[in-house]
Amino acid sequence: MSFNTFGHLFRVTTFGESHGVAIGCVVDGCPPRIPLTAEEIQLDLDRRRPGQSRFTTQRQEPDQVKILSGVMTDPDSGEQVTTGAPIALLIENTDQRSKDYSEIKDKFRPGHADFTYEAKYGLRDYRGGGRSSARETATRVAAGAVARKVIAGMRVRAALVQMGPHKIDRDKWDWDEIGNNPFFCPDKDKAAFFADYLDGIRKSGSSIGAVVEVVAEGVPAGLGAPLYAKLDGDIASALMSINAVKGVEIGAGFGAAELSGEDNADEMRIGNHGPAFLSNHAGGVLGGISTGQPVVARFAVKPTSSILTPRRTIDRNGNDTDIRTKGRHDPCVGIRAVPVGEAMVACVLADHFLRHRGQVGG
Amino acid sequence: MSFNTFGHLFRVTTFGESHGVAIGCVVDGCPPRIPLTAEEIQLDLDRRRPGQSRFTTQRQEPDQVKILSGVMTDPDSGEQVTTGAPIALLIENTDQRSKDYSEIKDKFRPGHADFTYEAKYGLRDYRGGGRSSARETATRVAAGAVARKVIAGMRVRAALVQMGPHKIDRDKWDWDEIGNNPFFCPDKDKAAFFADYLDGIRKSGSSIGAVVEVVAEGVPAGLGAPLYAKLDGDIASALMSINAVKGVEIGAGFGAAELSGEDNADEMRIGNHGPAFLSNHAGGVLGGISTGQPVVARFAVKPTSSILTPRRTIDRNGNDTDIRTKGRHDPCVGIRAVPVGEAMVACVLADHFLRHRGQVGG
Amino acid sequence: MSFNTFGHLFRVTTFGESHGVAIGCVVDGCPPRIPLTAEEIQLDLDRRRPGQSRFTTQRQEPDQVKILSGVMTDPDSGEQVTTGAPIALLIENTDQRSKDYSEIKDKFRPGHADFTYEAKYGLRDYRGGGRSSARETATRVAAGAVARKVIAGMRVRAALVQMGPHKIDRDKWDWDEIGNNPFFCPDKDKAAFFADYLDGIRKSGSSIGAVVEVVAEGVPAGLGAPLYAKLDGDIASALMSINAVKGVEIGAGFGAAELSGEDNADEMRIGNHGPAFLSNHAGGVLGGISTGQPVVARFAVKPTSSILTPRRTIDRNGNDTDIRTKGRHDPCVGIRAVPVGEAMVACVLADHFLRHRGQVGG
Amino acid sequence: MSFNTFGHLFRVTTFGESHGVAIGCVVDGCPPRIPLTAEEIQLDLDRRRPGQSRFTTQRQEPDQVKILSGVMTDPDSGEQVTTGAPIALLIENTDQRSKDYSEIKDKFRPGHADFTYEAKYGLRDYRGGGRSSARETATRVAAGAVARKVIAGMRVRAALVQMGPHKIDRDKWDWDEIGNNPFFCPDKDKAAFFADYLDGIRKSGSSIGAVVEVVAEGVPAGLGAPLYAKLDGDIASALMSINAVKGVEIGAGFGAAELSGEDNADEMRIGNHGPAFLSNHAGGVLGGISTGQPVVARFAVKPTSSILTPRRTIDRNGNDTDIRTKGRHDPCVGIRAVPVGEAMVACVLADHFLRHRGQVGG
Repeated sequence: MSFNTFGHLFRVTTFGESHGVAIGCVVDGCPPRIPLTAEEIQLDLDRRRPGQSRFTTQRQEPDQVKILSGVMTDPDSGEQVTTGAPIALLIENTDQRSKDYSEIKDKFRPGHADFTYEAKYGLRDYRGGGRSSARETATRVAAGAVARKVIAGMRVRAALVQMGPHKIDRDKWDWDEIGNNPFFCPDKDKAAFFADYLDGIRKSGSSIGAVVEVVAEGVPAGLGAPLYAKLDGDIASALMSINAVKGVEIGAGFGAAELSGEDNADEMRIGNHGPAFLSNHAGGVLGGISTGQPVVARFAVKPTSSILTPRRTIDRNGNDTDIRTKGRHDPCVGIRAVPVGEAMVACVLADHFLRHRGQVGG
Repeated sequence: MSFNTFGHLFRVTTFGESHGVAIGCVVDGCPPRIPLTAEEIQLDLDRRRPGQSRFTTQRQEPDQVKILSGVMTDPDSGEQVTTGAPIALLIENTDQRSKDYSEIKDKFRPGHADFTYEAKYGLRDYRGGGRSSARETATRVAAGAVARKVIAGMRVRAALVQMGPHKIDRDKWDWDEIGNNPFFCPDKDKAAFFADYLDGIRKSGSSIGAVVEVVAEGVPAGLGAPLYAKLDGDIASALMSINAVKGVEIGAGFGAAELSGEDNADEMRIGNHGPAFLSNHAGGVLGGISTGQPVVARFAVKPTSSILTPRRTIDRNGNDTDIRTKGRHDPCVGIRAVPVGEAMVACVLADHFLRHRGQVGG
Repeated sequence: MSFNTFGHLFRVTTFGESHGVAIGCVVDGCPPRIPLTAEEIQLDLDRRRPGQSRFTTQRQEPDQVKILSGVMTDPDSGEQVTTGAPIALLIENTDQRSKDYSEIKDKFRPGHADFTYEAKYGLRDYRGGGRSSARETATRVAAGAVARKVIAGMRVRAALVQMGPHKIDRDKWDWDEIGNNPFFCPDKDKAAFFADYLDGIRKSGSSIGAVVEVVAEGVPAGLGAPLYAKLDGDIASALMSINAVKGVEIGAGFGAAELSGEDNADEMRIGNHGPAFLSNHAGGVLGGISTGQPVVARFAVKPTSSILTPRRTIDRNGNDTDIRTKGRHDPCVGIRAVPVGEAMVACVLADHFLRHRGQVGG
Repeated sequence: MSFNTFGHLFRVTTFGESHGVAIGCVVDGCPPRIPLTAEEIQLDLDRRRPGQSRFTTQRQEPDQVKILSGVMTDPDSGEQVTTGAPIALLIENTDQRSKDYSEIKDKFRPGHADFTYEAKYGLRDYRGGGRSSARETATRVAAGAVARKVIAGMRVRAALVQMGPHKIDRDKWDWDEIGNNPFFCPDKDKAAFFADYLDGIRKSGSSIGAVVEVVAEGVPAGLGAPLYAKLDGDIASALMSINAVKGVEIGAGFGAAELSGEDNADEMRIGNHGPAFLSNHAGGVLGGISTGQPVVARFAVKPTSSILTPRRTIDRNGNDTDIRTKGRHDPCVGIRAVPVGEAMVACVLADHFLRHRGQVGG
């Protein structure tokens, strides 16, 4: 990971600010002759798009993606396919309200990156958060859609498993429910509860944190590489790079700290389809390499920092002041992080799939 | 992070297996004219060295480090200093017992990387865990000692804050206690408790997990870079790359999921020494860039997988079998991870210190 | 250098095909608060733009660059400046003639990358050369314009010093002549000769090779780094990556093979402004590090492969056939490589300037 | 290429100074289960070893290589094979004469990197050239020996084709002659001439430059990648990174500048074994991708800078002075660059072989 690029063989570079001309990304290293259309990418983008329920920001952006390069009609199949050249994806910013920024232009919003960007660069793009806006994650979702095509045999899904202190009931986990509620929640009952719970938070102008779980199925054993290219190490930095994420864990995660060696060991037996593990505390990764079991990662998302309650802060000129953030915001930014988490794990898997094939072969 | 190298400007490449000729690392990109001696590096290595109490493996390795390159006597100061050339550090393996490996040679130990290395490479170095052995972490500690010299104004310390379900009392935190017990525990009373607790686990041939906290003080505001070179993203992968680590969090971490926006916001005021935060839920990082507050990271270490209780497994030839791991092992591998966590964070900070200076200057 | 990205701290990623929607690049790692406008970039682009004389392709592209991200109005100075975020530059393709490609669609043009792209990827973008078109070099020139702002104290210029077997007279070198002829030729008399010479080649439908020299003045001593980040090593790959380049040399270059140690040594004396070299066979680089003298590099450009004379070739289906390339082409593609060479050297210097500041400070 | 590491999937990191404890390298990313012994590597090292004739430095170093890591006995085949872990190779320095360096300690030797290292780092390792010594190239040859095993179907050989102004007769090229003379010269008659010619230069305490040609046969079509990972771009930086190299060219190279499009085009026909080129001006690379023809690269080596004739220079303290370099030196350092050039090209090919397999598959 290097500035605004991540990945080694499957490489993604993103650019753009919240309220600039456009955001976008360049996906480099994609294998050739993979069918790819803007419509497929759009499907993933639409899942992340804001304004689809009262629980996400009311900013209205169609988030329409354009493929600028890297595809052509296959002379043999007639399908639009990748060429092996870099795939540039562009999303124009259409809802750049010519808003009055005088309120936040000179004040550092607590919990935001305002102070740190200013400290680092000597200035910051205060328009909608600039580069640090969650809007950039749309480009990750677009890149993730390409990654999914590279690892066509694997399935990467994510779900919201906790909002505030309220965890889902894992016995009620049903992937089919994900699409039935605005929270990407696999527990139908908890989803109903979240609707009320989050309404209360939203109406009070507050916000709340969340935990998201990503599960990748169909990952063959052998992806990842010791020691500084571990699959879980790369997943950790990929998820931690998402806005507002403060923690990442694999498999049993922090719970493993409380386990004994006996309980944590995933025993093995020869099953009908080869080696089988009897449990998955490892979360599908041992020694940084995939085991063939589902890869399971969770990440914690802090509450949205933009809230209506005034907070104490300082301004650029060194004065104490207060700030409250008006405008369109997500009461639980963790919700829209769900497709972003999927996308980041898909990109990491695509990269490791190619790297493994490079070092070890087919 | 790329195979066995991490860092961009301050780069560390490690090599070596547990029971090979030697382990070592090459530290590249170190600024010139920094005083550096093998003795200084040795001090850090001695803190990690096994066999210092009954709570760590009884493997006896002096872990004596040699500097092979990259230093010379400064013609001006007469001190031994870095030259800007790569610093190669070598630790010979002296306690390579010509042990009988027939028991584990063909069996996959649950919780170890045996199965995954075999799945990836078609063979594995079964002698003491080979490349996946925690022994490799000695080279990280050596590299970390160099990193500390690069970031001389910063102080990176770590402590064991949880063993099994037992957390320390944060009100009793005393850094001076770290050196007074074999657990790197900052809570004197809890350290006494851990001695008994771990004795029980050790005698039963079992093991237990732990949580380690790393605190870096004196980190100036502005280190780290959006979006895929975030300071917390790099800390996450660096800590996750340590053996047996299953989770990483920054500041409030997973606890942030339960907080409201009001509670999570670190308010600011102009203090006597400039901008001051009134709390540190952020763990010293906002938008991937340091705030000037202490950088606080925690990581979860799973219980040692080598235990005396037999576990079900399979062998290379596809047969069901059982295994119990005899030999010298740590009942709580999290203990020795404490100096390793310090070293990894020191390396990440050194890298970001140089990268920041590169992009932004001074 | 990695697929479509080059540089370490000053990083450039390019994308786009000759006849696609657009070409562009992302410049990442640029220091903040550097004044930058599209107009400045356009100036450099206009120097490379085709169709400005009868000696370059008649393709008419305005090559109008747009800055999509990474700049804002500095609240302090009121100027448009860089923010430290990635700078995306876009050039739309406007002259994509809906041409009939049936002639070349299935035939491999000798000297072009047709056969190799097909061999590598299983297909190729035959529309105007696709990714391998010299059109991509416009994005390098745009990136180079940004690089120039980073190394504001250095001056990077290039000149055409040979066309076919005809070399310029170095005693007549006058930088001011560069802009007075369509060849970027510093020797006025030779420029007049080239006009006639190239007219003959152009009219016969043939083409000719050339040599370009890049000179960077004001480069401080100390840029570059042993051993695999040598300044000359990076210049070599940067120049060799330009379309049609077949050779690169520094200072005396291949001529150094004929020199004795006595003649090749650049002797030194203390001059009025510090250390001074009495000659510059080294081309401003010793041991991969700049000496403070002008950095001098030359590169050889092969003749344009698209010619009117029929050449023997094969087609995708394995049949022998012939091909002659009609359409708009440069009789000497080396001419337009002049500003491209400047841009590549500027990017390498910007990268090394930042890397040096990172490792050594100042 | 990044400081002291080169390659992406097949990565080599080197360390060590001429007169330090040891030199060595870490080869990372090597595929597993490749048979590899120290004896094989030694064979290549012995070809480069100094002191084998009166035409190379009389420094006597056995250059005995030790494999520290990354290999084990394959439980299946019984052979020593790679494991996929980093392969550390160590060569101890045994001939570190405790020489009197007072003569050169404070003086900058013209043509050497003395001044630039001092300018960059504020000090330099004056003992035998330190890091900038040609001795480091032994580690490249060792790494190259590993690379050869990775690209077992390809054959990489090099030859000295010019010494001073004297070029070999290409019609007399006979690879079998390479081992029959101390110059790696494929032209028997010219080798006899070189013996006399270089004796004269040696006896006068002077030195002379040379040109080396590397030829890689059996390279499949499709290796390399547009645009900044071109095979020829990577070869250019790899060869330019060798000490004293001032120029690199591919195929027709600088000669291509003098060719017309008709003459430069390598026409194609369907041959008995598939697509065949009727000439190889391209040197086996088109658009940065291998054509399937032999890859041909040449590089120019400047004359050894250490000569007996006094040269004017300055010292660290800013005084004008003179210097003549006594001691053991090569009258034509280009000779020993021959196996180094082979090794570098082998490493680049191994890297691109793995990268191609990663992106495009087997």
